[in-house]
Amino acid sequence: MSPADLYLNDVQTPALILDEARMQRNIDRLAEHIGSKGGVLRPHLKTVKSVEIAKRLLINGNGPATVSTLAEAEIFAEAGIRDITYAVGITPQKLDRVAAIRAKGCDLTVILDSPDQANAVVEVSQRLGQKLPALIEIDCDGHRSGVEPSDPTLIEIGTILHEGAELRGILGHAGESYEVYGKEAHAAFAEQERQAATKAASNLVEAGLPCPVVSIGSTPTAHAIENLDGITEVRAGVHTFFDLVQAGIGVCDQDDIALSVLTSVIGHQRDKGWIIIDAGWMALSRDRGTSAQRVDQGYGVVCDESGDVIPDLIVIKANQEHGIIALRPGSDAGLPELPLGTKLRILPNHACATAAQFPAYHVVPTSRDAPLKVWRRFRGW
Amino acid sequence: MSPADLYLNDVQTPALILDEARMQRNIDRLAEHIGSKGGVLRPHLKTVKSVEIAKRLLINGNGPATVSTLAEAEIFAEAGIRDITYAVGITPQKLDRVAAIRAKGCDLTVILDSPDQANAVVEVSQRLGQKLPALIEIDCDGHRSGVEPSDPTLIEIGTILHEGAELRGILGHAGESYEVYGKEAHAAFAEQERQAATKAASNLVEAGLPCPVVSIGSTPTAHAIENLDGITEVRAGVHTFFDLVQAGIGVCDQDDIALSVLTSVIGHQRDKGWIIIDAGWMALSRDRGTSAQRVDQGYGVVCDESGDVIPDLIVIKANQEHGIIALRPGSDAGLPELPLGTKLRILPNHACATAAQFPAYHVVPTSRDAPLKVWRRFRGW
Repeated sequence: MSPADLYLNDVQTPALILDEARMQRNIDRLAEHIGSKGGVLRPHLKTVKSVEIAKRLLINGNGPATVSTLAEAEIFAEAGIRDITYAVGITPQKLDRVAAIRAKGCDLTVILDSPDQANAVVEVSQRLGQKLPALIEIDCDGHRSGVEPSDPTLIEIGTILHEGAELRGILGHAGESYEVYGKEAHAAFAEQERQAATKAASNLVEAGLPCPVVSIGSTPTAHAIENLDGITEVRAGVHTFFDLVQAGIGVCDQDDIALSVLTSVIGHQRDKGWIIIDAGWMALSRDRGTSAQRVDQGYGVVCDESGDVIPDLIVIKANQEHGIIALRPGSDAGLPELPLGTKLRILPNHACATAAQFPAYHVVPTSRDAPLKVWRRFRGW
Repeated sequence: MSPADLYLNDVQTPALILDEARMQRNIDRLAEHIGSKGGVLRPHLKTVKSVEIAKRLLINGNGPATVSTLAEAEIFAEAGIRDITYAVGITPQKLDRVAAIRAKGCDLTVILDSPDQANAVVEVSQRLGQKLPALIEIDCDGHRSGVEPSDPTLIEIGTILHEGAELRGILGHAGESYEVYGKEAHAAFAEQERQAATKAASNLVEAGLPCPVVSIGSTPTAHAIENLDGITEVRAGVHTFFDLVQAGIGVCDQDDIALSVLTSVIGHQRDKGWIIIDAGWMALSRDRGTSAQRVDQGYGVVCDESGDVIPDLIVIKANQEHGIIALRPGSDAGLPELPLGTKLRILPNHACATAAQFPAYHVVPTSRDAPLKVWRRFRGW
């Protein structure tokens, strides 16, 4: 043991704990599933925001990636990732930054769903003398953005891009699959996502336009999909860590969740059955993604320091730096005695939101007796 | 104009915008109110997490302060603030860090509400040969932590501290005042907070114990309090910026809110009346603090680029990097035409939560034609 070695017991709370073995199991599970169908994964790095984890998540450590901000694109490009899709609709003001990232040798692709955006891409392409590539976002479930596959606007956008920039293909995201439970329902959304994407691709091709990329994906549909006909790549992100929302819709089990918040007991209100901890919403995030699910997990499920779930104990309330732990409503389990200073771990509702509250991961290595690793996380836009 | 000058139009979105004139007005308002009662303010710096803003908020720029994390205490102590209360119940593991901050010349006080914590403070005081000061947290409204003023535990804790460390006094926080509307209701909570605190102080003194500090405060009660008899200091934090939650309970008006998120329109779903922006929950936070108020403001109220509210337009939904703007349910206002690239500003539900999502403030100076200032924000524990 060197003087710098850090163990769980030394970590100041609250802290973000990552179980490396669980993470690797989650990464392998999806890679094997998509690989067994002959598909290509383009993992979304918005969840992890860490170069160390990207190396473990991407094919060969630097394969195709998806990002949600240009800050992610800049940092991952700098780290040697050469094929990135920026999967949030582009606004004209950001195109010069996109071009600057491309000029450094990263094939960064934007997405869009309007002729105005396509014209902006063409304008910048012409001004800079380089054809910027763009995917057309399609709407496969009414979730948020995108043009419908049969909307003539699709061909209009495709034509603008093909003539003045680079029409790279289409992209769909079955965001509504998060709202349904179980593999059968997710498989139905996956097929709907696939059909919408391949229909849009056919429509482009029938109009004499190219469509080399047909990209779909969400964590629930990626794990459920059986048929990848016509699909060139699949995207998913939160599966790297998983969380209570994904467990709540049956995509994973609670013991697949690789991320937790280490916290300390700082007080008790014994008359009320409350245990106060030093993890509030600043650590756990305000995400209440399980609130409308079959089981509302409050601000998170309580585990002991080694990560084993304590039955029926959840965080019922969160202030900025205080969490209140209590038994789940209706529970007949007894409230455990958790004295002052007891360390606990809280499983998060939403891994993307909870991880975003921390500047670093404290990584419990696969060899659990070894010291922790600390991996930096970044943020910003 | 120097090459480095930055104006609102140059800022990449999303970004955190701070209106300096509004902030100064908010700071002055509470300082004048408490000053007119002969009281002393100990502002809470958990909202701002910025040395630049602390200098404007504290008495003489470095007067008494409250913090919510030891990271705040370390950074503000380093910046020359010499009197800090760490207002989250202490856990034994953190006491060495507390002592290290004190050793650098900052009078850092901890709070606690149990004999176990008091014994831990005594143990560290004896081990280090310095009497660590502590305030006893009292419960004035059942909100969260604290001992009740008439609970004999109060005297037990006080005795332990007085004999083996330093009993600095008591601290109360009327957290439930956020749940009621209007100055009259807040004044009632303020009086309840004052009575609980002075009762606890009297009980300590009657038991032969010292109680030099009697500290109360929350943003609603601090603005409503009329009688400070027996109170030595008042705490508040979110009033520096204000937010929709505070406007929703009548502590401020919407045009007092000094903080907003600058965002760009990135798409439209015209059939649904949706405008898509590049500020999702990563920028706005997941806080939905107005959801149970008289008017639910969704994920925030939409303003134009200069900060004027657009009638009935709110952020109805937020994904990680996407927000969906629509008219408030039941509105008969027309949906404005906001073309691709239009800049908007979103007023936040909860300033503490939204500010925490950003690494810096972009400050619109009091002289609005001057370039923006950029003030760093920190985070972590």
